[in-house]
Amino acid sequence: MNAGHIESLDRLKAMFQKLPGVGPRSAERLAFHILRNSREEAAALAQAVMDVKDKITHCKRCFNLTETDLCGVCADPRRDQGEIWVVEQPADVVALESTGQVRGVYHVLMGHIAPLEGIEPAHLTIDALAQRVRAGDVREVVLALNPTLDGDGTALHIQSILSDLNVRVTRPARGLAVGSQLEYATAAMLEAAIRGRSPM
Amino acid sequence: MNAGHIESLDRLKAMFQKLPGVGPRSAERLAFHILRNSREEAAALAQAVMDVKDKITHCKRCFNLTETDLCGVCADPRRDQGEIWVVEQPADVVALESTGQVRGVYHVLMGHIAPLEGIEPAHLTIDALAQRVRAGDVREVVLALNPTLDGDGTALHIQSILSDLNVRVTRPARGLAVGSQLEYATAAMLEAAIRGRSPM
Repeated sequence: MNAGHIESLDRLKAMFQKLPGVGPRSAERLAFHILRNSREEAAALAQAVMDVKDKITHCKRCFNLTETDLCGVCADPRRDQGEIWVVEQPADVVALESTGQVRGVYHVLMGHIAPLEGIEPAHLTIDALAQRVRAGDVREVVLALNPTLDGDGTALHIQSILSDLNVRVTRPARGLAVGSQLEYATAAMLEAAIRGRSPM
Repeated sequence: MNAGHIESLDRLKAMFQKLPGVGPRSAERLAFHILRNSREEAAALAQAVMDVKDKITHCKRCFNLTETDLCGVCADPRRDQGEIWVVEQPADVVALESTGQVRGVYHVLMGHIAPLEGIEPAHLTIDALAQRVRAGDVREVVLALNPTLDGDGTALHIQSILSDLNVRVTRPARGLAVGSQLEYATAAMLEAAIRGRSPM
């Protein structure tokens, strides 16, 4: 018998533990933090959690996250609408945007093809992508999917669908991860780096 | 310009980042997790956060956390009311209860004496502890404070206050941490272990 338990505290711990990367110890630390902090802070967190669920939808053009009809990228007149960066999920848009290197717009597939998990091409936004390209004025489609088996498979599928349309299909370079050590590179990474070598 | 930002998502990230041990990367991962999961899950988390603030108070006898007048330990007739374990904070009760070894009850000081931080004895629940002891039937007070400078200082202060009362004052054993390696023990840990050595 452990009489030291308090129901609402236990429930908060359990909720925190459902979050990714939060173990029993950090869940306890987080719960006690909420308990110690002001009611205003707790209310702000609770409100922020609900706002994310209630306010965010998908951009009707590119399926990126947005609180309005069009996402910030699609609505920005300075972005190059002729260059579409295809990514698997909204988090990838955040990653690419953080580089400041993408001048084009995005198209979020909402996943990758994974037949074993029952995810077919029809479950993704591939049709909408083909329609955007067919509508014209798209010069280049960059398939910025994850460099994984599923990502590559999905990229190949999209490439075949776009092959009839008059558009250049590319993908980001692969090679050694900047800052990594050759010694610890995987064979696949080394192979990509060797095949793609370029003059200094 | 990073047009990939969504206000409510950014706000949730910022809220998560205020939590202990949550950096920018995990805050982002947590926010996207909330976004991907069901509205029901999000609502349960938001509710759990608020419940902890709204339902939990302090036990009127020992200052442990509780949702009722008396905490689960104080209200349990099987616990030995003659043995009071004095701890700094409610989280310490959880830690001690998890051992299943404490048959007595608790007294939570709500901190430790730290003059430099402006925490004086009067800010703690020391008076209430003395009153509990004076009320009678308390045989032993175990000062289970943190084995730190502040914890030791607070323990000494409490000891002097209880010295006039007819009660045995003890503290948990100190020594080598079980599972640790002698090689890496601090001088203070070794000193305590050497002074407190016992026959095998």
